[in-house]
Amino acid sequence: MKAINLADKLSQFSDHWSPRIVGQYNGNDLMVVKVEGEFTWHSHPDTDDFFLVLKGEIDIEMREGTVTLREGEMFVVPKGVEHRPVARQEAHLLLIEPAGTPNTGDAETAAEKVAL
Amino acid sequence: MKAINLADKLSQFSDHWSPRIVGQYNGNDLMVVKVEGEFTWHSHPDTDDFFLVLKGEIDIEMREGTVTLREGEMFVVPKGVEHRPVARQEAHLLLIEPAGTPNTGDAETAAEKVAL
Repeated sequence: MKAINLADKLSQFSDHWSPRIVGQYNGNDLMVVKVEGEFTWHSHPDTDDFFLVLKGEIDIEMREGTVTLREGEMFVVPKGVEHRPVARQEAHLLLIEPAGTPNTGDAETAAEKVAL
Repeated sequence: MKAINLADKLSQFSDHWSPRIVGQYNGNDLMVVKVEGEFTWHSHPDTDDFFLVLKGEIDIEMREGTVTLREGEMFVVPKGVEHRPVARQEAHLLLIEPAGTPNTGDAETAAEKVAL
């Protein structure tokens, strides 16, 4: 049992939009991810989607408006709400999703989530 | 729908060991808390217990050893594991627990969790 250092985990990879699992909480994956550019529009019909910005800034575009998140800011996209994360420059995030949730909302196109 | 700025939320209160609810994720409370000193030994029989240090440093004492968490470090106390958080100086944390979980593991002694 040891502390999970998020910056250390993030230093171990450089690709974008490919979450790494760093812990578990009640059947949820705790993940860090590096993002840059525009993700795809998607939604998760069965789960909320948790974002915390650890470094940088992202926009979470939704059909009814955009939420900008800076370092130290958190947002939960409600279940079923279409959204598209966009990062103009590289940003680092903590994500929480139930284990097995496809990051694109679609198992066909989802990134494989690898444990770090 | 707006960003939740954790430092801003933390600036709105000064008491210790009294979590403020700042968001919800799938029936879990997302909370910020200021801690200082020794909490009580307790466990949560039905849930893991998520800690992320936003500022400062804490020890999570468990019967089998202590995990020290510094800023940017995360730890999940597994369900049922007895633990005691200790902060030698004030520290700021993000906590996640299923809504209604008593912070002491006991509804009789738990702090009331207020939404901010």
